[in-house]
Amino acid sequence: MENRLSKKLFWRSACFTLSFIFTLTLNVSAQTKEHETDATFIDRIYDQSLTDGRCYPWLEFLSLQIGHRLSGSPGAAKAVNWTKSMLDTLGLDSVWLQPCMVPHWVRGEPEQVRLIGSKKNGTFPLAALALGGSVAGKVQADVVEVDSWEQLDQLGAAGKLKGKIAFYNRPMDPTKIRTFEAYGGCVDQRVGGASRASKYGAVAVLVRSMTLRLDDFPHTGTMHYDSAYTLIPAAAISTIAAEALSQTLREEGRAKVSIQLNCKTLPDAPSFNVIGEIRGSDRPNDIILVGGHLDSWDVGHGSHDDGAGVVQSMDVLRVLKTLGYRPRHTIRCVLFMNEENGLRGGKAYAKEAARKGEFPLASIESDAGGFTPRGFSFEGDESVFGKFFEKLTTYESHFAPYGLQFRKGGSGADISPLRGMKGLLSGYSPDSQRYFDYHHAESDTFDKVNKRELELGTASMAALVYLIDKYGL
Amino acid sequence: MENRLSKKLFWRSACFTLSFIFTLTLNVSAQTKEHETDATFIDRIYDQSLTDGRCYPWLEFLSLQIGHRLSGSPGAAKAVNWTKSMLDTLGLDSVWLQPCMVPHWVRGEPEQVRLIGSKKNGTFPLAALALGGSVAGKVQADVVEVDSWEQLDQLGAAGKLKGKIAFYNRPMDPTKIRTFEAYGGCVDQRVGGASRASKYGAVAVLVRSMTLRLDDFPHTGTMHYDSAYTLIPAAAISTIAAEALSQTLREEGRAKVSIQLNCKTLPDAPSFNVIGEIRGSDRPNDIILVGGHLDSWDVGHGSHDDGAGVVQSMDVLRVLKTLGYRPRHTIRCVLFMNEENGLRGGKAYAKEAARKGEFPLASIESDAGGFTPRGFSFEGDESVFGKFFEKLTTYESHFAPYGLQFRKGGSGADISPLRGMKGLLSGYSPDSQRYFDYHHAESDTFDKVNKRELELGTASMAALVYLIDKYGL
Repeated sequence: MENRLSKKLFWRSACFTLSFIFTLTLNVSAQTKEHETDATFIDRIYDQSLTDGRCYPWLEFLSLQIGHRLSGSPGAAKAVNWTKSMLDTLGLDSVWLQPCMVPHWVRGEPEQVRLIGSKKNGTFPLAALALGGSVAGKVQADVVEVDSWEQLDQLGAAGKLKGKIAFYNRPMDPTKIRTFEAYGGCVDQRVGGASRASKYGAVAVLVRSMTLRLDDFPHTGTMHYDSAYTLIPAAAISTIAAEALSQTLREEGRAKVSIQLNCKTLPDAPSFNVIGEIRGSDRPNDIILVGGHLDSWDVGHGSHDDGAGVVQSMDVLRVLKTLGYRPRHTIRCVLFMNEENGLRGGKAYAKEAARKGEFPLASIESDAGGFTPRGFSFEGDESVFGKFFEKLTTYESHFAPYGLQFRKGGSGADISPLRGMKGLLSGYSPDSQRYFDYHHAESDTFDKVNKRELELGTASMAALVYLIDKYGL
Repeated sequence: MENRLSKKLFWRSACFTLSFIFTLTLNVSAQTKEHETDATFIDRIYDQSLTDGRCYPWLEFLSLQIGHRLSGSPGAAKAVNWTKSMLDTLGLDSVWLQPCMVPHWVRGEPEQVRLIGSKKNGTFPLAALALGGSVAGKVQADVVEVDSWEQLDQLGAAGKLKGKIAFYNRPMDPTKIRTFEAYGGCVDQRVGGASRASKYGAVAVLVRSMTLRLDDFPHTGTMHYDSAYTLIPAAAISTIAAEALSQTLREEGRAKVSIQLNCKTLPDAPSFNVIGEIRGSDRPNDIILVGGHLDSWDVGHGSHDDGAGVVQSMDVLRVLKTLGYRPRHTIRCVLFMNEENGLRGGKAYAKEAARKGEFPLASIESDAGGFTPRGFSFEGDESVFGKFFEKLTTYESHFAPYGLQFRKGGSGADISPLRGMKGLLSGYSPDSQRYFDYHHAESDTFDKVNKRELELGTASMAALVYLIDKYGL
């Protein structure tokens, strides 16, 4: 009896095992085949981008024919019209402008910042740029160097900032491997420094430029006032100027600086996000977004920040279209207006998406320069994020031949207003070592962008779009 | 009985399991602690390099004060003396010059290559550089474009190359993600093209420059003659010139070109490898080598090829010395002479190492530019290689925070003569996208090198040296 049972059990289990192995083999073989199909298509995406890419000549036009394009400026208006006209040539299902009102700050006549009457070096100019949003002003006063918020508060409490120019000189930390971390570690000085010094009676602020290079380019960027305190002028000075000023203070015990800023905030101006899409065949209301921001600061060409993200996002749609890809979900390219000083485009887009009841399935932003791809970072609502990431690990293997890796982390400013809608948010991550050399400075010009690096970025984004479209999340 | 046996077995196995778990826990905890110690030291290496690195100012001097340094040239002699004098300041255990005779080829008066009497464009210059090793010559003849070896043989067999200039125009393949593969796929035209065309009666050769960019910089490089055939002049032309020449042939059916090269091969000249070392406390005869090559082509500054590898190798020793690291094995920096056109330095080094009975435990070459680190490639004798790689996978985890990955693959030309001695050979692999933009061209200048990218390379090499020194292979 026992023997018969054993035999029966043996055969049952053998049959089960065999059928299990059979099914497994079929599955594995189907999966392998699918993996190969995907790998082949992704290869075609990279080949298309590297042999027939449009992003580089587009960036050349945007940089050299249009140039910088701060919100509200003629350059921004030209960039809206020209990118729309380019999207119009791609045979997309829809291309449109999405209106939004934007802040309109102008620099006016070039700023003048001078160190006055140094014993050792006399009077000489400090390379400077007014911070975006600063008020105009003409002051001459002694400078007090501030290297931390604690120091600011101590100096302020002791009355030592009254009538003085506060000089924020805390540098980016060169030991951070990801330069964005180093930037994150000191940009608070630029954004909030003016009002925090004004609270203690300071009459103006100078901020060391947010860059890891020692050179003579000042780097501008946005700043905000706290309306509780007097609005005082605020400017960035180059790292060389910051070192000179700091050295003068150290060696001579004091330094007097004159500042003249001629900037002005005009009434808000009408502008647009530029949008193009390939309509999804299966789930048209689920949106896979690729985007960057069309506005830039009012210096250089804005080629890395964020001309690169703009032309890559446009080219993702062109590459997929050229390869005859028919998406299940709607694939949409969004060129956001006003990332730099207001995020009005991003907010308008999110509001409209909510109104239309769209689901932002995945939103990928390229706003970290046009350098060699290193990977993507992902963030999303925890309740859906778990599922996402299991598949993403499988997706990641497709990027190994191209040297990209995935990680959890922040995505992009323009897509951040979509956070509440529980889709996946992703930031395209190119190599970050050179980004802050050019960020918000005259040196962010077209010649700093390498054609292949830019094209590899387009291909990487298109490949991720393809996988997410094919498999969902 | 059966019951008692079961119990006994149960307790035995329980005791064994517990003691196993205990030992395992101890081991794992010891390993974790060791891993942390290593991670901390590697962090210090990166911090040292990024805050106090010397490689960048050294490269500035080598590039701007010495400049290019082809074997046998005054620049090469200066570079030998100056790098030795820098190594002398580092408090190493020994610094010395290792003699070797090197080829001495000189370009002479600038070459002149002109397209003659095009119907559409008249006569105009083609940007050209004689290939290293070419004979001088003055010829004027019709051009025949050659895009493959098969085509060459067909044209040759049909007598169509007789008295003609062969124009090799097979481009680098832009779809290769690693640009070195694309280079490997067409450099045969430059190296062997002259004699293969001379065999069929060609009077000179022009070669499309080995670059992925479309610009007007010709890229030189070494070539070899087969003494069985007449030695004919050979020059590289820029990709723009190659496109113009090809278009003329396509549109007008023929193109005539005049070539004048003024180069000369002089008798071999005496030169040196420059070597410095920190002597190992435990196994001084086992050598961990870091190196690059001191010579360059006779154009530009040779900053990426291979000034970067030179200063990084020097700085690896300085970083370890500054951190007070006392190595078990001898850590040696070797600045090889004559990689570009003879490899005499590499051969002399290997010969001397064999004579002294040294074991080249690990040799790491940096000769792929000073760009952001992407990883290391490894090759070695199969009989020892297996062991190596198990540990290397553990080592690799230490590089994850810095974005480096390991792979099997080629190492470097200068260390290749060590291959027979069964040590580990490694190539430092920076990002390759921009390398061939500048390789062997006037545009390989100091301003193309980013300080942080260079310093990160130094740190990566120093970290690998540290791990190999600590754990052996």
